[in-house]
Amino acid sequence: MGKGDGMEKVVHVDLADRGYDIRIGPDFGSTLEAAGEGRAALILADSHTGPLYRDAVCHMLENNGFICSYLEIPAGESSKCLSQLGAILEHAVEAGLDRKSLLVALGGGVIGDLGGFAASVYLRGISFLQIPTSLLAMVDSAVGGKTGINLPQGKNLVGAFHQPVSVAVNLATLETLPEREYRSGLAEVVKYGIIYDEDFFGYLEKEQDALLRRDAAVLAHVIGRSCEIKAAVVAQDEREGGLRAILNYGHTLAHAIEAVFGYGVYLHGEAVSLGIVYANCVSEARCGLSSDASRRVQDLLEGFGLPVHIPRDVEWNPLRAVMSTDKKAQRGVPKFVLAERIGAVQFGFEVSEEALEAAYRSLASPDRQ
Amino acid sequence: MGKGDGMEKVVHVDLADRGYDIRIGPDFGSTLEAAGEGRAALILADSHTGPLYRDAVCHMLENNGFICSYLEIPAGESSKCLSQLGAILEHAVEAGLDRKSLLVALGGGVIGDLGGFAASVYLRGISFLQIPTSLLAMVDSAVGGKTGINLPQGKNLVGAFHQPVSVAVNLATLETLPEREYRSGLAEVVKYGIIYDEDFFGYLEKEQDALLRRDAAVLAHVIGRSCEIKAAVVAQDEREGGLRAILNYGHTLAHAIEAVFGYGVYLHGEAVSLGIVYANCVSEARCGLSSDASRRVQDLLEGFGLPVHIPRDVEWNPLRAVMSTDKKAQRGVPKFVLAERIGAVQFGFEVSEEALEAAYRSLASPDRQ
Repeated sequence: MGKGDGMEKVVHVDLADRGYDIRIGPDFGSTLEAAGEGRAALILADSHTGPLYRDAVCHMLENNGFICSYLEIPAGESSKCLSQLGAILEHAVEAGLDRKSLLVALGGGVIGDLGGFAASVYLRGISFLQIPTSLLAMVDSAVGGKTGINLPQGKNLVGAFHQPVSVAVNLATLETLPEREYRSGLAEVVKYGIIYDEDFFGYLEKEQDALLRRDAAVLAHVIGRSCEIKAAVVAQDEREGGLRAILNYGHTLAHAIEAVFGYGVYLHGEAVSLGIVYANCVSEARCGLSSDASRRVQDLLEGFGLPVHIPRDVEWNPLRAVMSTDKKAQRGVPKFVLAERIGAVQFGFEVSEEALEAAYRSLASPDRQ
Repeated sequence: MGKGDGMEKVVHVDLADRGYDIRIGPDFGSTLEAAGEGRAALILADSHTGPLYRDAVCHMLENNGFICSYLEIPAGESSKCLSQLGAILEHAVEAGLDRKSLLVALGGGVIGDLGGFAASVYLRGISFLQIPTSLLAMVDSAVGGKTGINLPQGKNLVGAFHQPVSVAVNLATLETLPEREYRSGLAEVVKYGIIYDEDFFGYLEKEQDALLRRDAAVLAHVIGRSCEIKAAVVAQDEREGGLRAILNYGHTLAHAIEAVFGYGVYLHGEAVSLGIVYANCVSEARCGLSSDASRRVQDLLEGFGLPVHIPRDVEWNPLRAVMSTDKKAQRGVPKFVLAERIGAVQFGFEVSEEALEAAYRSLASPDRQ
């Protein structure tokens, strides 16, 4: 990816007094709004991305009058737990963070979710800055204010809504992202096309090759548009009373796949890719989605190297059982987001057991993978 | 304490869509608003109060269509920690609690703070019902939406603002409260008179004997008025941007005493009693509080059997050091609430080191206690 020449995009998340800007540019930026008077900042990072970017981020913060401390935790989903939360909170006390201090979440989704949750509960809430370094975090987890950790029984069962003061996307950090993780992030991008914007979906089809070679200008547009869509949805329903559910297109099965296979067998975006194909099948049966549209989505996902079939020896019942414990489930009945066409979805569907299982059968590949 | 005859008082906490009622009566009440359609409820209690009241509370909830589960944790401040929080959250998953479920905090301040915090983060927030069983919890911690836990470095360093759906005060539970705990609760009651209502302070002086024998009618009035004052302050400043600070009259030193002596040497209300006498001394020097008013407050606290002198061999420096880590401190400088007269206080004072230490000297008793 070449350094962008002047490309810089700002997306505003419109949440009244909790509104903030997402800045997408070729570096970590040079100014931070509302830096205040020499406040303490704690940079939280993991063992993969911390060593790469901590100096640049620390420099940017110090230029804005902050006094920085730094905490690095082990990379990986297993860090999104109560004991790492405790370690961060105790470190924050030792570093002298008070109510005016800033927590900086520098990393992917794990760091953003964990760091944001720590910021939301430390002294009953301090400011935090999101610096997402994975494509998935840039287009999804860093935007919208959902923070949280996992319990042994499932992902994201504990957390808070806590909006960042700002999100700083440095496109250059994508250069170091492993290929599989990069492609995984594209699954959520495809999702935004399906749930909200047919033109954007067409753009993704057209720029498929440019995306695969991480073209900076195309990425700036794609990340910006993804953030705009998420921001628009979140602005209408910050605390997930209704519309926000559409962001979970494909996620009911995806969460079940992650739980049944164990975290890491399928990356989140890979599980979402399977979940999207699954939701398409249910949508064809229940919501009038055309088989042509379903095929276009599957082709695009496959073009991005994402899985669209589940191994045939995977059993249905364990997946179905996990769906009953989904956070959106009520009294064990999962609620689905379904598509009428590319760009238009509806939420809140209860689907018959037969239709749920039939869609699963069509997701299974003809041959063992 | 005799059973009240028809005494029942409702105090509304006016917080727009988060507003709720505090019901003060002679039992656990018979109806729960917004019980909904047979939701799951988890009753959290400690090993002291749980066995006494769990059956009555469970019965009340079942009469309102809830399906109850029950979790008991060890009594005492040390349960207000991250590991007990984890135990509650995992229990909630196992008990099948979903976003529509209810957590019931049945107990004193530890259970209310811990249970409320668990409710605020479980699935990013579920409803909770406060059933305070100590005087301190009834007049203070159960009202206002502050929830939280302790860290090894200090009390209440982690938490959230999360309002209950309702607070149910059963005056009969005060009958089983140990004398020392009961008197400790009266310190916060005295505080409400000082910060907000001179007439109420006069009522406390007049009804001192009735309060000491736990007269039900007097208690109903005193608890109701204390809740009204706290509710009025919280309604004006839910998230502690300003006015809410006045609720901390006497608490800067109280928190330092609790931290330096270790929790349990002084009960919270006993530490608050010392903190009030201390704040009075500073107020005389800085804010024009008359020595006559200061004397009235000290007499009332002594009349309730609360400590008003600190042992002479207690050193100042450790107490002063803890004040710098107070949540209200900014860059190590504690902020004080000071009284002009009984019923009128101001907040946000920075006080000179000399004045802080001089007030401490006058708090020390002439003889070792």
